[in-house]
Amino acid sequence: MSTGRVEAFSDGVFAIAITLLILTVSVPARHGPLGHELLRLWPSYLAYAVSFLTIGIMWVNHHALFRHFARADRPLLFLNILLLMLIAFVPFPTAVAAEFARSDSERRAAALLYGSTLTLTAVLFIGLWLYGSRRLLRPDADRREVTGITRSYLPGVPMYGGSTLIAFASPIASLLLYAAIALFYAISSSFFGSRD
Amino acid sequence: MSTGRVEAFSDGVFAIAITLLILTVSVPARHGPLGHELLRLWPSYLAYAVSFLTIGIMWVNHHALFRHFARADRPLLFLNILLLMLIAFVPFPTAVAAEFARSDSERRAAALLYGSTLTLTAVLFIGLWLYGSRRLLRPDADRREVTGITRSYLPGVPMYGGSTLIAFASPIASLLLYAAIALFYAISSSFFGSRD
Amino acid sequence: MSTGRVEAFSDGVFAIAITLLILTVSVPARHGPLGHELLRLWPSYLAYAVSFLTIGIMWVNHHALFRHFARADRPLLFLNILLLMLIAFVPFPTAVAAEFARSDSERRAAALLYGSTLTLTAVLFIGLWLYGSRRLLRPDADRREVTGITRSYLPGVPMYGGSTLIAFASPIASLLLYAAIALFYAISSSFFGSRD
Amino acid sequence: MSTGRVEAFSDGVFAIAITLLILTVSVPARHGPLGHELLRLWPSYLAYAVSFLTIGIMWVNHHALFRHFARADRPLLFLNILLLMLIAFVPFPTAVAAEFARSDSERRAAALLYGSTLTLTAVLFIGLWLYGSRRLLRPDADRREVTGITRSYLPGVPMYGGSTLIAFASPIASLLLYAAIALFYAISSSFFGSRD
Repeated sequence: MSTGRVEAFSDGVFAIAITLLILTVSVPARHGPLGHELLRLWPSYLAYAVSFLTIGIMWVNHHALFRHFARADRPLLFLNILLLMLIAFVPFPTAVAAEFARSDSERRAAALLYGSTLTLTAVLFIGLWLYGSRRLLRPDADRREVTGITRSYLPGVPMYGGSTLIAFASPIASLLLYAAIALFYAISSSFFGSRD
Repeated sequence: MSTGRVEAFSDGVFAIAITLLILTVSVPARHGPLGHELLRLWPSYLAYAVSFLTIGIMWVNHHALFRHFARADRPLLFLNILLLMLIAFVPFPTAVAAEFARSDSERRAAALLYGSTLTLTAVLFIGLWLYGSRRLLRPDADRREVTGITRSYLPGVPMYGGSTLIAFASPIASLLLYAAIALFYAISSSFFGSRD
Repeated sequence: MSTGRVEAFSDGVFAIAITLLILTVSVPARHGPLGHELLRLWPSYLAYAVSFLTIGIMWVNHHALFRHFARADRPLLFLNILLLMLIAFVPFPTAVAAEFARSDSERRAAALLYGSTLTLTAVLFIGLWLYGSRRLLRPDADRREVTGITRSYLPGVPMYGGSTLIAFASPIASLLLYAAIALFYAISSSFFGSRD
Repeated sequence: MSTGRVEAFSDGVFAIAITLLILTVSVPARHGPLGHELLRLWPSYLAYAVSFLTIGIMWVNHHALFRHFARADRPLLFLNILLLMLIAFVPFPTAVAAEFARSDSERRAAALLYGSTLTLTAVLFIGLWLYGSRRLLRPDADRREVTGITRSYLPGVPMYGGSTLIAFASPIASLLLYAAIALFYAISSSFFGSRD
């Protein structure tokens, strides 16, 4: 299968998952004054923004990987479906984090769920890259760029994994770290690439 | 990254956000006669139509901007993700406006939320254009058209910002203004362009 | 704007609206035995199938129209946005019909809502075609085919309008007619075209 | 109509249906400790993963079929719309299976619904292929490959049909079989093809 078609399908899943995030922000019930209720929703807005940035960055990365592949074989398709399964899953931990971020007793479980999802996603990203970059590289791929990608993706797993583990000590620190990672990647050059 | 791919992804988000708007119109509960309940939903229909038009116009505009860019660099991608984050957010203030437009006490907060979202969107639109038109313009871009776009986009922020502020005096006037702006843009030539 | 881009965006809205229809089939509550509850949902399955077929046919038609246009101008874009606004609206009357089709007292209102939506959609379809076929026809468009499309689209409005009015006499007959029209179009050659 | 356009529309429906699956995993209510509630959702996670894999495999298959067709005629379009109607339906039986998999009394009905949906999908897949491979084959289609596809698709119906019938004896065995089939296809070479 051509990489173009795999990318088009993947782009569709990325675009839908990112847009479905808005369903995690729910209209306040008619309890108190609306203005007050809307302000109380700040964890929903924050979770929406962090997950939106995170999926957006992953979309950019996904393209950055695939353009180095000459074609897609069976194991790559399988790894890619697993990766998309995790990307499309993100709205769920986002909704859980938004709902429970303010609860002292439940914040930890929410942070662990969110972090585990992103850690697994990072594992699949690097797995897909390691497989594809060894087996399916385009003959004209720039070796320096390939090594550069490997170097810049490897820290993803320990970074997300570490932030997840921190939830055992401080769930708030853990949640802030997810936001910081998204912001860092969105702004830093390592991911969006300087030549791209 | 080529602008084509950024546009395709953005188009996906626009198309999904505009279609998700229907989820803001909810099936009436079995309280009174259905015919009556369906008529009482008029704020939902109106909010749906106004937001649909608004996102539709923004989609046309988004394309009008990007076809003048030679390529997409990192800051542009970042600005674009922020812009999409706001476009995909629109279903939420739409649902809030539909739900609370008939409540005298809550209408103001709903109008402020709706207007703030559109004002921020307008800020990002002009920001993306000012950045892109200075740094990434195609060599063959028509300078007159570029100036024309800048001139026709600049009023967006004060128009939406002003309509939002009017909510403090009269939330109804504010909501009517959002509808009027959408209708005006949809019909007027300034946005859909005469040559396009 | 090129028709290709308008079609791609429209295709997105069609594909999303048709897939969102599944959200109108809701998981039964834990009242009675699940098997029984699932069978009681037959109006939901039927409404899903009829709306799916209807949107599917409209997608085919939409393409059949646009391939005769040389380009898209401002009024066409506006008519197209209004048309998409109605296509994307279909999940709502579908959900209402599924929910109230079994209620003797509310069936009429549900049938009227469903029929009005489809009648308006048919009006916009013929309006878009009449506008486009007069102003934007490709120079090499086959006149015979153009006349054929006009002839096969004109009955849409009276057919849907008539079926809607029948709801005043018999809501059940009206609902069955919507299903019959969808099936007739899906099978008949007039819409899917013999050369296409 | 060109197969390219039919495939693009179908891809859209596949991508949306697969991503909507996440809506079947619902945020736990604030009953017990969140960690415990999240673990109790395992049937939702499993149903999500199985349906995601299943739709993903069907997407790959859909492409494998269509690339052998020279064009799309009316009956093929109709069969394809029916096929998409079933693909887009999958989130419903997935939600039902997730909700009722733990209930001893309701598990059977859930397994029957899930299996019937997949069996019907398999029927339409083979039907679409048998029709298309007889009428619309590309002149340069490799006969060996065509026969190979027929051979590898035919078992789909008895496999899903059989697993569905097993629900009468053991609903749990039936549900496990759906998962096993998805996993088998995802890993085995018969579907993802060795040359593709």
